Order: sequence, then C-alpha cells, then structure tokens
Amino acid sequence: MKTLIIGANGKIGRLLAERCVKNDIPARAMVRTEEQQRQFEEMGLEAVLGDLEGDMSAAFDGCEQIVFSAGSGAATSPHKTLLVDLWGSIRAIELAEQKGIKQFIMVSSLKSCDPLRGPEKIRHYLVARHCADDRLIRSSLNYTLLRPGRLLDEPGTGHLNNEFDWSDTTNAHCTVSREDVANAITLLLKQPLPPGQAIDMIKGNNEIEEFLNLYR
Amino acid sequence: MKTLIIGANGKIGRLLAERCVKNDIPARAMVRTEEQQRQFEEMGLEAVLGDLEGDMSAAFDGCEQIVFSAGSGAATSPHKTLLVDLWGSIRAIELAEQKGIKQFIMVSSLKSCDPLRGPEKIRHYLVARHCADDRLIRSSLNYTLLRPGRLLDEPGTGHLNNEFDWSDTTNAHCTVSREDVANAITLLLKQPLPPGQAIDMIKGNNEIEEFLNLYR
Repeated sequence: MKTLIIGANGKIGRLLAERCVKNDIPARAMVRTEEQQRQFEEMGLEAVLGDLEGDMSAAFDGCEQIVFSAGSGAATSPHKTLLVDLWGSIRAIELAEQKGIKQFIMVSSLKSCDPLRGPEKIRHYLVARHCADDRLIRSSLNYTLLRPGRLLDEPGTGHLNNEFDWSDTTNAHCTVSREDVANAITLLLKQPLPPGQAIDMIKGNNEIEEFLNLYR
Repeated sequence: MKTLIIGANGKIGRLLAERCVKNDIPARAMVRTEEQQRQFEEMGLEAVLGDLEGDMSAAFDGCEQIVFSAGSGAATSPHKTLLVDLWGSIRAIELAEQKGIKQFIMVSSLKSCDPLRGPEKIRHYLVARHCADDRLIRSSLNYTLLRPGRLLDEPGTGHLNNEFDWSDTTNAHCTVSREDVANAITLLLKQPLPPGQAIDMIKGNNEIEEFLNLYR
C-alpha cells in the first residue's frame, strides 16, 4: 500500500518521509518545487509535484493511502489558513473520494473539535481545521484523525497521552514533539487503526505503540 | 412561520427587515448591540441580541425559519472571513438542526461552488462560503441557497438572471442590486421554494417572481 504524503516538505512531513525510507514503507512525497522533488529523491523517496492550492490530481494516482500533514502553520496569515488548511484539506479529501483512495490519515489540531474553547490566538486556525475535519468525518473514507497539541521541535520522548486540559487556554502545557507525532504516524502506516477515530495527542506517559493500541 | 434574520444589520438584512415590516411577514432581527436592537424595534420589528461569534442559541427559539444574510464582507480581513462567514454560518446551520428549525435560506455568493475559478481577490471568501454551503447541502435542513453576484447598492431593477460568465474573472459584469436580492428573499418568505436548490443570481431580464418560478 503506497502512501502519498501531502505536506512532505513540512516539519512533520519531513520527519515522516525519513522514517518511511528507513522502514521501507512505500511512500510518495507531494512537493511544490522541483528542488524539493530532487531533495526527496536523493533521500530515497519517490516525489512528485503537486499544488495544494491548484492542481494535485496526478499526485494521487497509484496511491492507496493519504497522509495529510500540510499546514500553513498557525502563525501564517488567515488568508493562507483558508486556502491551505481548509481548502487544501477539503480538496484532498474530495480527490481521495473521487479516486477511490479509502485510507486517509489527517493531521489536525488539538481542540479543533470546539474552536471557541481553544486558544484565542489560533481560533481562526481551529475553525479551519474543524471544518476540514468535519468534512472528513462526513466522507466515505476510512479516516484516522490525529489532533496533536502545540507542536514542538524538541526530541521525541517516545510517549504520548490523550488527556488534556481545556482550561490551559494557551496550550502552554498541551504540547507534543513533532518527532513523537511522526513516529506515531509511522506506526499507523505499518498497522492501520480501525477507521473512524479521532485521537488527541499530547506528551504523556504511554509508550507510543501502547498508546495507539488504546484505539485498536 | 416566524423567520429569524441573522445579519439583520447588514445591508441586505436591513432591506429585508424593512420589507418584512411592510408586508407583515413575521420576523425577528438578530443583532449584536442594544442600540441596533432599539433601531429595529422602532422600525416595528422584533429584535434580539445574538452573537455570531459567540452565543446565539436563544435567538433561535420560537422561529421556524432562518435567513442567513450575515457576512463580514469580501473586503474584511480573512480572519473575520473565517470566524463570521464560515464559522458563523456553520454554527447557525448546526443550531437550526439541533432546534428542529427546518427552513433555511442562505445568502452565499456567486461562484462559491468552485472557488478556484472565482475572482482571485475574493478567493478566500469563496472558499469560506463554499465550505459553509457544503455543510448546508449535507444538512438535514430544507434549504434554499442563494448565490448572488457582486452586490451593488444601486436601486433594484425588479429583474434577475441565473446565467453568468465564468470568464468574467473580476465579476465586473456579474453584479446584482442588493434591493433585488432582498426583494427575492421577501418573495421566498411568502412562498418557499421546493427545498434543496441553489440559485445563482445576477441582474437580468426575468421579472423576479417569474425568475423564482423557474425553481418551482
């Protein structure tokens, strides 16, 4: 089963791409520029051009699974939030449906289930994520919806948790290492979960594989 | 059947409110401030406080129909586009579902069905509208989705059309008077359409009542 990584050039995407190569997991990186394409090919991964805001249809052909880890980032302009996080996600979901690609892993965000209760600073981002996630939930796809907390560039801890505090209104403590998220996705590529589950994900004390087994 | 007008203080909303008073159509204006509330009450219309970005649940009670004509406007910041046009719309749809209010008239935008083909300047707005419209179409509501062209403050012409030119990439000619839109909605309040239809709407040569009859 070949997996298309949308957002391969993002921080989580790159970590995931490296792990696919290392673990011989069949994958393809979707990237925006030929330079990025060369970089991934040199790393040993198939890479194709595709534009989240434009044409990306061909990139899907021949894949059986999508990982969507693209994101304009919570810090970019709301204009990009609309065009990338919302519209890019929805178009990817709809393309997957059209092309009969059933498996879909979406990297969303903690608290996207209730944007008005999330950190005010990223509320617009949570709204975009919520609407895209809602479209995924209403789709015909076998989805796994990952909702990591505030992403950090720290080394992975090897451990995760799904309990978090809504009253932590800035997500000061609701954090998770990008490496831990990428390691969790890698495990999901090896062994998918029963579909239709949303998984909140912050740093914690469950070994990652055990953590995912909570959803099996 | 009482209609809640969400966005009553907007340009189309005000025109519609005046017409409801004039035609004895039972309606309630949802507004943000007590001053606006007094203005509508002086006009002869029931008015309640409700916040599209916060609490608006009570405003729905006792109504059997929703007109959503709120909009941050295509010219406001994408941040507001996300919170008002997208999230406000979706929350209104979900509240209507929860409260068993079946009739829903949504004022959307021409070309929202395919944002990437719409005017680049308002693309983020069309994306927001598209996603909200999609949620409405997937809802359990008896909806009428109105997609007017670029809105003008010119006097109404009494005529509409549903044929438009995708190649008019700035909507230079795809325009419509707000008065004509408000007059069309007034007619829909008197006599609803068979549900589940999307109606493109620009200036044209069909008398408004005849134009709406195309959808009966």
